[in-house]
Amino acid sequence: MAEEKKLVEEITSMEEDFAQWYTDVVKKAELVEYSSVRGCMILRPYGYAIWENIQRQLDAEFKKTGVENVYMPMFIPESLLQKEKDHVEGFAPEVAWVTHGGAEPLQERLCVRPTSETLFCEFYSNIIQSYRDLPKLYNQWCSVVRWEKTTRPFLRSMEFLWQEGHTAHATAEEAQERTIQMLNVYADFCENVLAIPMIKGKKSEKEKFAGAKETYTIEALMHDGKALQSGTSHNFGDGFARAFDIQYTDKNNQLQYVHQTSWGMSTRIIGAIIMVHGDNSGLVLPPKIAPVQIMIIPINQKKEGVLDKAYELKDRLGKDFKVKVDDSDKSPGWKFSEQEMRGIPIRIEIGPKDIQANQAVIVRRDTREKIFVSLDEIESKAAEVLEKMQSDMLERARAHRDAHTYVARNMEEFEQIINEKPGFIKAMWCMDEACENTIKEKTGATSRCMPFEQEHIDDHCVCCGKPAKVMAYWGKAY
Amino acid sequence: MAEEKKLVEEITSMEEDFAQWYTDVVKKAELVEYSSVRGCMILRPYGYAIWENIQRQLDAEFKKTGVENVYMPMFIPESLLQKEKDHVEGFAPEVAWVTHGGAEPLQERLCVRPTSETLFCEFYSNIIQSYRDLPKLYNQWCSVVRWEKTTRPFLRSMEFLWQEGHTAHATAEEAQERTIQMLNVYADFCENVLAIPMIKGKKSEKEKFAGAKETYTIEALMHDGKALQSGTSHNFGDGFARAFDIQYTDKNNQLQYVHQTSWGMSTRIIGAIIMVHGDNSGLVLPPKIAPVQIMIIPINQKKEGVLDKAYELKDRLGKDFKVKVDDSDKSPGWKFSEQEMRGIPIRIEIGPKDIQANQAVIVRRDTREKIFVSLDEIESKAAEVLEKMQSDMLERARAHRDAHTYVARNMEEFEQIINEKPGFIKAMWCMDEACENTIKEKTGATSRCMPFEQEHIDDHCVCCGKPAKVMAYWGKAY
Ligand SMILES: [Zn+2]
Ligand SMILES: [Zn+2]
Repeated sequence: MAEEKKLVEEITSMEEDFAQWYTDVVKKAELVEYSSVRGCMILRPYGYAIWENIQRQLDAEFKKTGVENVYMPMFIPESLLQKEKDHVEGFAPEVAWVTHGGAEPLQERLCVRPTSETLFCEFYSNIIQSYRDLPKLYNQWCSVVRWEKTTRPFLRSMEFLWQEGHTAHATAEEAQERTIQMLNVYADFCENVLAIPMIKGKKSEKEKFAGAKETYTIEALMHDGKALQSGTSHNFGDGFARAFDIQYTDKNNQLQYVHQTSWGMSTRIIGAIIMVHGDNSGLVLPPKIAPVQIMIIPINQKKEGVLDKAYELKDRLGKDFKVKVDDSDKSPGWKFSEQEMRGIPIRIEIGPKDIQANQAVIVRRDTREKIFVSLDEIESKAAEVLEKMQSDMLERARAHRDAHTYVARNMEEFEQIINEKPGFIKAMWCMDEACENTIKEKTGATSRCMPFEQEHIDDHCVCCGKPAKVMAYWGKAY
Repeated sequence: MAEEKKLVEEITSMEEDFAQWYTDVVKKAELVEYSSVRGCMILRPYGYAIWENIQRQLDAEFKKTGVENVYMPMFIPESLLQKEKDHVEGFAPEVAWVTHGGAEPLQERLCVRPTSETLFCEFYSNIIQSYRDLPKLYNQWCSVVRWEKTTRPFLRSMEFLWQEGHTAHATAEEAQERTIQMLNVYADFCENVLAIPMIKGKKSEKEKFAGAKETYTIEALMHDGKALQSGTSHNFGDGFARAFDIQYTDKNNQLQYVHQTSWGMSTRIIGAIIMVHGDNSGLVLPPKIAPVQIMIIPINQKKEGVLDKAYELKDRLGKDFKVKVDDSDKSPGWKFSEQEMRGIPIRIEIGPKDIQANQAVIVRRDTREKIFVSLDEIESKAAEVLEKMQSDMLERARAHRDAHTYVARNMEEFEQIINEKPGFIKAMWCMDEACENTIKEKTGATSRCMPFEQEHIDDHCVCCGKPAKVMAYWGKAY
């Protein structure tokens, strides 16, 4: 019992200190461990297994749209990074520089890739000659490095895992279509698999990617009312193509520049899973992404037949689900806490009395609802509960987001909301960067996106009062 | 026809210049492309797809033995790398050093991991307390960097992809068992999936891994008679544990050092696939690793019904195999060359006459055997041919290796074989490093391994004539 208390006591409650709650969960659920390399985290087996599940499912979606995987070098020569002016300005301040190989100084410094546009551009300029070579739809799964001052597990770290897709197209229309297509792949994946509803929209000029013509984003609302940019898709137009001379001969034998896109999603999204679904007992993982979906916990496991029954259930359920039996010599209470901390979607309790009654107890992680089921129909009942939990989690996250989305018509309202009600603010905007800066200075909120789903809230910019051009989402963000 | 000639003409023949043949195949089969980063290659979709297949199948084998995946930082602080003396001596001369983050010089240099023993040791020292925490069976899939002077695609490059497994155990016996277990996983995978037979054995003191107590290896023979070290498994004993203070309390509450292993296989193995199975028309891929197993090539594809039939076959065969239809407007001859260059195991030719006769022609890539099959039983026939091809390839590779394995009883024989008959040499050895050095100086051959399957060839060392302790394999190696 002392032990049981300890496990729960070690998590700070969300309401008391959300940031500390997050750090506690990440550590106690054994997702990450710190290393002696400043700002770099170790992904432990449980954290990495979540990433493997994300990777496998997202990769399959990419491939359905014709995307192929490649692997590019992790180093970028300084001269290559400098070829596109906006791009180098955006990234040079935050890259790690390799200056020596063994004992020898290098003739040219190499940066560790913060992103690989420049490498893909050089590659494309070598392999694209004719319209027959287009489109190129390449992606890579790798790690990238950004020299951040302050870091937090998953949300911001010096090195992180991600995928970066890079495509080249014959026409501007095709590039724009691909940009939106991949944004939709991300949004659908987040909703259907991670149970996180997303706002889809365009970034402002100020917030767009270094070198992009346009950046699109999916934005999610965390439990504490802060926004998290969860995936981005960029249309580069022919800007990089001109800087790197990526040309093809069209059907009329004319030289043309290609049009490019890139799009990425990273381990950051694991931070979203934690902060959207977690509670004061720890993680809550959507069934479709959970490394373990069912934990069978034998009660009175030393009684004859109990463990055998638990293993039998595991074999039966193992055909359709990822199942484990906790047959350790810890107390059931401790096992419950541990399964809750790790966010395992359902636990199945089975003891001597249950066996006698030919039943078991299914307990949902999210609602803690207890469901007594006959052992004869445990497979179908488990499937039902997991499916219900998956859709309930999405609905709950959507309800939370909608309840924390506010409308502001002037700065007074805006500031009041920011100070009293953390969440998204919908407000009209003249699209002038000056207003964006003013809002940030006064409130700490940034423009999250100009959503595809526009609403007409008012005629005037929330900040300057001039005629508004667009409705935007605003909020404090990770 | 001119085009067709061109594709084949561009490969140098193996007999003329094996190294050039290799380079040509790697490039023409579109496995890799060079980048402006010296010694770093780009893995193109076809090359990366082979790696994905290797990764998926090998990872499943690892997991069957209880291994879990993690991800460690790509940087190692200089002070951490220096903790184990032999290890740092082995690797420091060939690492890339990061000295600046953005514009700021770092207080301590970071090396880009050449291998991650030191990081895993630090991690293990943090998370292992009790015998209950053991064993730890972790693995990661990542890229590593070694500052090589000369590089060749797959065989030796500055950056390469690999997996590195790192385990910690309570006893020396358990660590030794795991070392051999993983060596067997590699050898079985190479034989069963890649159709490459392996010699399993122990490395000499001179050839072992920096910091290891013992290194075990699997060695393959390439078509040109050179050896390729294809995977290694190291037993560290408690050497790293002592250097990094990784201790646990045993059941009697006594502090004990853990015993560790590590084991790795890299994209180098793709070089082995090329050099063991390839021929003068290009790659020959074992069916179990081929990204495309069947290429359907329609003949007279403009004739009504031909393409429809080709797609119908694709749908039928696609249930069991990875199938593509080459419906491009290239000539069939060009398509044949391309399919051969890429080593696609079988092609299926189908034209108007075949359709009328309710048949198709299956052509094996390795033997070029043509097999006429009824369309009614095309699934079972394709399965049969692929299976036969897979086992024939292994048998052919084994026969080639055995035919190129020689016995030497003295240095005269040794030198004669080296000069006239490229291949493995089996010879007795006193286990003195002086003899290993002499042999290398005189012949260029190195000790490949002391095989588990020992033979008594002679009483005396092939080099010094003193009493022999062991039979070893020798050869020139990549
Ligand atoms: Zn304004
Ligand atoms: Zn000797």
